[in-house]
Amino acid sequence: MKPINIGLLGIGTVGGGTYTVLKRNQEEIARRAGREIKVKMIADKDLDRARSFADHDVIVTDNAHEVTTHPDIDIVVELIGGQTIAKNLILEAIAHGKHVVTANKALLANHGTEIFAVARTKGVMVAFEAAVAGGIPIIKALREGLTANRITWIAGIINGTSNFILSEMRDKGLSFEQVLAEAQKLGYAEADPTYDIEGIDAAHKITLMSAIAFGIPVQFSKVYTEGITKLTGEDIRYAEELGYRIKLLGITKRVEKGIELRVHPTLIPVRRLIANVEGVMNAIVVKGDAVGATLYYGAGAGAEPTASSVIADLVDVTRMQTAEPMHRVPTLSFQPDLLSDTPVIPMEDVETSYYLRMQVIDKPGVMAEITRIVAENNISISALIQKEPSSDSDRVSIIMLTHLTVEKNINAAIARIESLPVVTSKVIRIRIEELNN
Amino acid sequence: MKPINIGLLGIGTVGGGTYTVLKRNQEEIARRAGREIKVKMIADKDLDRARSFADHDVIVTDNAHEVTTHPDIDIVVELIGGQTIAKNLILEAIAHGKHVVTANKALLANHGTEIFAVARTKGVMVAFEAAVAGGIPIIKALREGLTANRITWIAGIINGTSNFILSEMRDKGLSFEQVLAEAQKLGYAEADPTYDIEGIDAAHKITLMSAIAFGIPVQFSKVYTEGITKLTGEDIRYAEELGYRIKLLGITKRVEKGIELRVHPTLIPVRRLIANVEGVMNAIVVKGDAVGATLYYGAGAGAEPTASSVIADLVDVTRMQTAEPMHRVPTLSFQPDLLSDTPVIPMEDVETSYYLRMQVIDKPGVMAEITRIVAENNISISALIQKEPSSDSDRVSIIMLTHLTVEKNINAAIARIESLPVVTSKVIRIRIEELNN
Repeated sequence: MKPINIGLLGIGTVGGGTYTVLKRNQEEIARRAGREIKVKMIADKDLDRARSFADHDVIVTDNAHEVTTHPDIDIVVELIGGQTIAKNLILEAIAHGKHVVTANKALLANHGTEIFAVARTKGVMVAFEAAVAGGIPIIKALREGLTANRITWIAGIINGTSNFILSEMRDKGLSFEQVLAEAQKLGYAEADPTYDIEGIDAAHKITLMSAIAFGIPVQFSKVYTEGITKLTGEDIRYAEELGYRIKLLGITKRVEKGIELRVHPTLIPVRRLIANVEGVMNAIVVKGDAVGATLYYGAGAGAEPTASSVIADLVDVTRMQTAEPMHRVPTLSFQPDLLSDTPVIPMEDVETSYYLRMQVIDKPGVMAEITRIVAENNISISALIQKEPSSDSDRVSIIMLTHLTVEKNINAAIARIESLPVVTSKVIRIRIEELNN
Repeated sequence: MKPINIGLLGIGTVGGGTYTVLKRNQEEIARRAGREIKVKMIADKDLDRARSFADHDVIVTDNAHEVTTHPDIDIVVELIGGQTIAKNLILEAIAHGKHVVTANKALLANHGTEIFAVARTKGVMVAFEAAVAGGIPIIKALREGLTANRITWIAGIINGTSNFILSEMRDKGLSFEQVLAEAQKLGYAEADPTYDIEGIDAAHKITLMSAIAFGIPVQFSKVYTEGITKLTGEDIRYAEELGYRIKLLGITKRVEKGIELRVHPTLIPVRRLIANVEGVMNAIVVKGDAVGATLYYGAGAGAEPTASSVIADLVDVTRMQTAEPMHRVPTLSFQPDLLSDTPVIPMEDVETSYYLRMQVIDKPGVMAEITRIVAENNISISALIQKEPSSDSDRVSIIMLTHLTVEKNINAAIARIESLPVVTSKVIRIRIEELNN
């Protein structure tokens, strides 16, 4: 049988990895796919780099449109990134009847619904395993492995950079800024690390997983996003003392009123397996009503791990292309005319429990005043600890853990606590997830 | 579109779970599969039990052949277990052009190659996600999620009963016999626990994973199998002191000479994520050349977790049945005419490292004699510890960790050590896997 022809858009880190792995494992991949998967064209602005990868029979171009419109190309692999050019190229490839494989989480989290709809009208597939959690086959697990389940929630460590930073802060007692500099030196963080440390990258990924898990459209604008830049070693240590570890989690949850969709630093019990995922590794816990909790762990980034997912999609598309479109695995797991309109609920309606830390002047009645405010906002306290300062200051830290409550109650309580003259700091607020039901 | 019709053979624990989950989540499952998945017939010897599940429009029978030959049935789900009757029913269903979904690991590990070949000639699918690690979609990950990779090794905690026993022995300091009795009381171990505690169940599962990972036929007769019945609390404690945890692992590995395929208690470093998988839970680490190590964790048994995998297969078969057979995901991941004849190597050729413990009479020269034997067998020692007994006996325990060596060298060394008059016990030998490359 003749090979399936691939056009690669972008031969950067992931594109290079994809070319290398396809070539190295071509025999084994062909044994699985039933035919050879062959890169026929590479488009990249950097022609020298493209030529340094390309074998003699590969067409190299700096004009991506040549690839998206070429009659011999069966699948276009978009690894350029960004939203404007990448989107146009993907739409052009679809218009020319080509299947698309992409790792572009930002594009799909923002414009996925539109792109998937266009692909559907043309009867082609858009596959994006590489867009979420690098080499971990989590999209496949959600879309195919857990189809029996009503999914209850997903919680994931889905940004390696921020997990590395948090691991190092805890292990070595360093500050956020120190570890960030180290991560940049090691190549784990980019020169502009905003997307990673502000939770935006994680927000793209949880948006995609949420859509697949709950059969809703992708809605990046609805994610609550809070990064790790304000975390201190102090909170990491106190959390440990209380039996928790702080991780940046992407969380999506089905609750009575709708879907929760959020990214923020989170205290999770140290005894949970996911609490022990360290460094740049990723892991996702999925809770289904039949299967219970399952966890998926692996490298969340890097040339070859991401290439592993790109190529898995290539094999899938190769295998599936002869199936009638309506019998293929639906892009968002649910058949597109059966998407649900369950709303994403606003953050202030989210119910969770909280770790609060504040600095107060150490005098009689302060505790009473703070606990009264908390009670008046219908929040009940599960632990309250006073920490003496190391210096001989008259200030002490108060750490409070709450039971489940609604975010707006906490907001109201924090505002009132911060207005007390005896409270001399902002109130640090970190959400807690037990991940047990 | 008309429903796809299922015939359930056996409505025991997993059959009951399958019926219940299909019914509870029918709307969501249909949204994913694109059509309703409907149980149309149930066959079970216990007609009362079958009727207690069956809705009014389900045909109940105690004659399984009615189901396997019924013209309206599209997919037969075999959940009877055992090898003789189940095999005949599956072959009969295939002969009648029906797809088959089964959780029968013993049958497939022994007769899978034959069954898959017959299914191929009839152009039907045989799906068995539920046969390995309960609700964890590991077959899908291996067969589809990691197709880019040359898989190097797999190591899995794939028997919940034995993992529960080892966890409890460590946690509570109880003996094997005490915990086994507890496990039987809790329903985690059967009245005859042989399959679980002797590693046979794990051997079935690793056989299936090995075939899929390496594209070789299923060869249960080639698995080296050693259970957990001889493990003592003493070894579990010493392992912990040395930074290891003892787990019953199913291991398969591609090495120069062929494929390793084995089940035995194994020391693994406590810092590995899989070392922290406790109780009845299962987890599998898969090492691929592109993706690195990925881990999959979840419930390895139980009515609804197993049903989760059965139903995922039902959705897959429903989605794939319109694809041309040669474009479906191949049963063993690799196209059947492209299976490899790489041999499974005998255990004595397996290379690993070892934990050895022996009791000796405490007198000068003993250590020298033992280490000389070890050296003469080309084994190098990485740690050697002498443990004083609690009583005032003249015997001491010697614990030795070795570097990588070949099993036959260890066998030879152990035989010679045991023949020494100063050695007063059998030599306990537990294999070590670092799981790091």
